[in-house]
Amino acid sequence: MKTLKVAMLGFGNAGCAFAEMLNSKHEEIKKKYDCDVKVTAIVTGRRGSIIDPDGIDLDKVCPAGNQGSFPADTPGLGNVDAMTVVNEADYDVVCEMTPLNIFTGEPAISHIKGAFARGKHVITANKGPIAWAFDELSKLAEEKGCMFFYETVVMDGTPVFNLAEHTLKMCKVTEVSGILNSTTNYILEELAKGRDYDSIMESGRKLGFVEADPAMDIEGYDAAAKVTALLNVLMKAGITPDMVDRTGIENITAEDIQAAASRGKVIKLLCSGSLGEDGKVNAFVKPVEVDTKDMLASIDSTTSVVSITTDLMGKISVIEHAPEIEQTAYGIFGDLIRVVEGF
Amino acid sequence: MKTLKVAMLGFGNAGCAFAEMLNSKHEEIKKKYDCDVKVTAIVTGRRGSIIDPDGIDLDKVCPAGNQGSFPADTPGLGNVDAMTVVNEADYDVVCEMTPLNIFTGEPAISHIKGAFARGKHVITANKGPIAWAFDELSKLAEEKGCMFFYETVVMDGTPVFNLAEHTLKMCKVTEVSGILNSTTNYILEELAKGRDYDSIMESGRKLGFVEADPAMDIEGYDAAAKVTALLNVLMKAGITPDMVDRTGIENITAEDIQAAASRGKVIKLLCSGSLGEDGKVNAFVKPVEVDTKDMLASIDSTTSVVSITTDLMGKISVIEHAPEIEQTAYGIFGDLIRVVEGF
Repeated sequence: MKTLKVAMLGFGNAGCAFAEMLNSKHEEIKKKYDCDVKVTAIVTGRRGSIIDPDGIDLDKVCPAGNQGSFPADTPGLGNVDAMTVVNEADYDVVCEMTPLNIFTGEPAISHIKGAFARGKHVITANKGPIAWAFDELSKLAEEKGCMFFYETVVMDGTPVFNLAEHTLKMCKVTEVSGILNSTTNYILEELAKGRDYDSIMESGRKLGFVEADPAMDIEGYDAAAKVTALLNVLMKAGITPDMVDRTGIENITAEDIQAAASRGKVIKLLCSGSLGEDGKVNAFVKPVEVDTKDMLASIDSTTSVVSITTDLMGKISVIEHAPEIEQTAYGIFGDLIRVVEGF
Repeated sequence: MKTLKVAMLGFGNAGCAFAEMLNSKHEEIKKKYDCDVKVTAIVTGRRGSIIDPDGIDLDKVCPAGNQGSFPADTPGLGNVDAMTVVNEADYDVVCEMTPLNIFTGEPAISHIKGAFARGKHVITANKGPIAWAFDELSKLAEEKGCMFFYETVVMDGTPVFNLAEHTLKMCKVTEVSGILNSTTNYILEELAKGRDYDSIMESGRKLGFVEADPAMDIEGYDAAAKVTALLNVLMKAGITPDMVDRTGIENITAEDIQAAASRGKVIKLLCSGSLGEDGKVNAFVKPVEVDTKDMLASIDSTTSVVSITTDLMGKISVIEHAPEIEQTAYGIFGDLIRVVEGF
């Protein structure tokens, strides 16, 4: 039986849910793929690190979740930082789940480069590297013969990148669009109900739909990073998020929404990219009016959609319905299974 | 360079569009996969057959489309029947595209068995075999080491079967539902506009949405066969179409639709199957009321949708938007590329 050693950078909600899923499926993976998957390193921002080449006992560390401390008697508990783990720890695949810097993609990009430099495989749930450095990283992966998976970057484990790669053989993608930001989706819906902005933000924070600092969502930076990732992978666009023509929803008023409603329309923050006549990919994020009968109008709250148009298969859409944290975990888990298969 | 020989059973709209797509991509496939794909047999119901072990000249036979006769000087033109081609012709993969018998799956099932008996690979665009004999046929394929692909059976080339197999690793499907019949979708929409049944049927026939004998669609037989195929593959249901609890739209009146509208609902012919407590899959096809804001309400005319719920990835949906015949062709073409890869 082969053994696959996993290093986890980040152990927040998603990382913890992934570890739990992996733990619950450990025996099934062993049986199906003849592979013993061991987590040999976990690095967190504030709760220290765990390094254990024999495999960390997930039964022991998962129950703490992403709150509180790891049990004091956890073997290998310490304070090693992420870059040191990348460069020195014993692992075969690294799962990059550190907090996103949406304006640079760092330090995730450096983590991934460090792993490839050692010939290690990489799974990233962090959209920064795919938005800011996809071409460079995928070239490095190819040179080093490493696997590089990132399904979770857009719509959690919903197949988008894998769908295009494994099910749309020989199709050329000509257009990609979608609704990809839950926060703005929620705010626009609540504004349409006649609620005032401040109370929406307050209840949104309680529901977990609105971040402490919501500007990244409201001004369209998050959506721009996501559509950049989509276009870099699906259309080889070679762009960065600052090249996206970006308009957020910060200037959308309740009056705008009511005026749209009077025309049978709703306002959605749409992301889109298409092939221009010059062969370049033009991308935008902006609020658009869509017909209430349009599929896009039905994409409410945390539900999201990506539509892909290709030369051979026309237009198809993939919807992720009201995901929970398990769907993010599955994105990483599904990529891990892909690594197990190719290992 | 390897050579892959293809036998086509059926050369209607879809078969002809597939041949044209294959012809246009011939050089690209050669270059990408180092494989020369040749069509060595074409069998039609009324226009005879073409058998040419050196490869049929698709430039010559495609322009006739599915109308008229093949050029009289086409090498290998004759009157060989499908079963003889299956049993005796020189080919590596057969594409089953003969007319569907929705109550038996024949003669397509016999064609496929014949091909497997000779160790040949099979692509079917015909839903009959997947609805009526999936377990038997997939077992045969496995025993003989043959590839067996059928993406086109539901929603043309839109990834449904491939999606589940290649992108939802280790997920267990617990529920499948969808809107899969364009004819009934069209009729319900037109009834909602206040049109009378006879005029809808007349214009539907002109648009190609309504068959000469529409009973198979209207009474839900087509939808039942499709949901059976979905459930047999995705949930290993082991059922046949006659086990689906089937209600068509033949008793839906304009009054029913107006009453639904007054409640903010529209009527759609929904297909569904889910795992019962007894471990068996229960399937139905029936008209249901859905909220106008529901994604299902947006699935109009020839657009269709399949939703898949799994234990690990929650619920996702895949939509095929307003397909043309090229999307059916791509379904077969995509399966063929899969055969090229595995050959």
